[in-house]
Amino acid sequence: MHNHDLEESTALTPAFDANGLVTAVVTDARSGEVLMLAHMNAEALKRTIETGEAWYFSRSRQKLWKKGEQSGHVQRVIELRVDCDQDAVWLKVEQHGAGACHTGRRSCFYRRMPLGASGAKLEFVEEKSFDPKSVYDK
Amino acid sequence: MHNHDLEESTALTPAFDANGLVTAVVTDARSGEVLMLAHMNAEALKRTIETGEAWYFSRSRQKLWKKGEQSGHVQRVIELRVDCDQDAVWLKVEQHGAGACHTGRRSCFYRRMPLGASGAKLEFVEEKSFDPKSVYDK
Repeated sequence: MHNHDLEESTALTPAFDANGLVTAVVTDARSGEVLMLAHMNAEALKRTIETGEAWYFSRSRQKLWKKGEQSGHVQRVIELRVDCDQDAVWLKVEQHGAGACHTGRRSCFYRRMPLGASGAKLEFVEEKSFDPKSVYDK
Repeated sequence: MHNHDLEESTALTPAFDANGLVTAVVTDARSGEVLMLAHMNAEALKRTIETGEAWYFSRSRQKLWKKGEQSGHVQRVIELRVDCDQDAVWLKVEQHGAGACHTGRRSCFYRRMPLGASGAKLEFVEEKSFDPKSVYDK
């Protein structure tokens, strides 16, 4: 089930899924906060490695995009890691601008689910730090 | 393209993919380190919320599993967050035992990809902290 060679290799050989994508977890290099989750195809990963700025592949728009190309909220990559089975990468970034989330928050993970019982209400833990209408076309 | 109601709702209404899964990012509640990436189906998410311990759905084995059921390396969930479009959750956990990764490391993200040029070698940034043979059936 596990591939020892892949896990202990020093070669980057991403295990792209059926759609040609790996998952990217993006954290703030300073606070450690998870900012967003996105996907990369081979070209997005290549451009990210070569430029040190985060590129992704949008599944909904089916296109390559550079984070911040529209909002100006670019992400400078401080460190890039790959996981054991090479189907996920972890980007520690310096987030430029007010935030990573298109809703206007720093992080996409701005709601907490209380533990203990299913059916509880989500709690908002982060306010909007910018007006998304001012930076994204609607 | 975006669903304002979903994003600003206090109702947990996970956007499961075609396979009935959401992605789970798991970080160490103290260090902020990303430990692993996994998937949850509705039942895994429900059990995690109700028990405060992490349950996942294995895509390779096509079964529900409790983290640590074999290794003893259970994860106590300190906080559970959901992202804007509710297709991903973020678990801040207290990792019991020596690590989260089946290869014997604390984190699955134990290799760094140098930036600047494609084709560079991965650098190992974490040693094995336990012998996987001693805790997992092979």
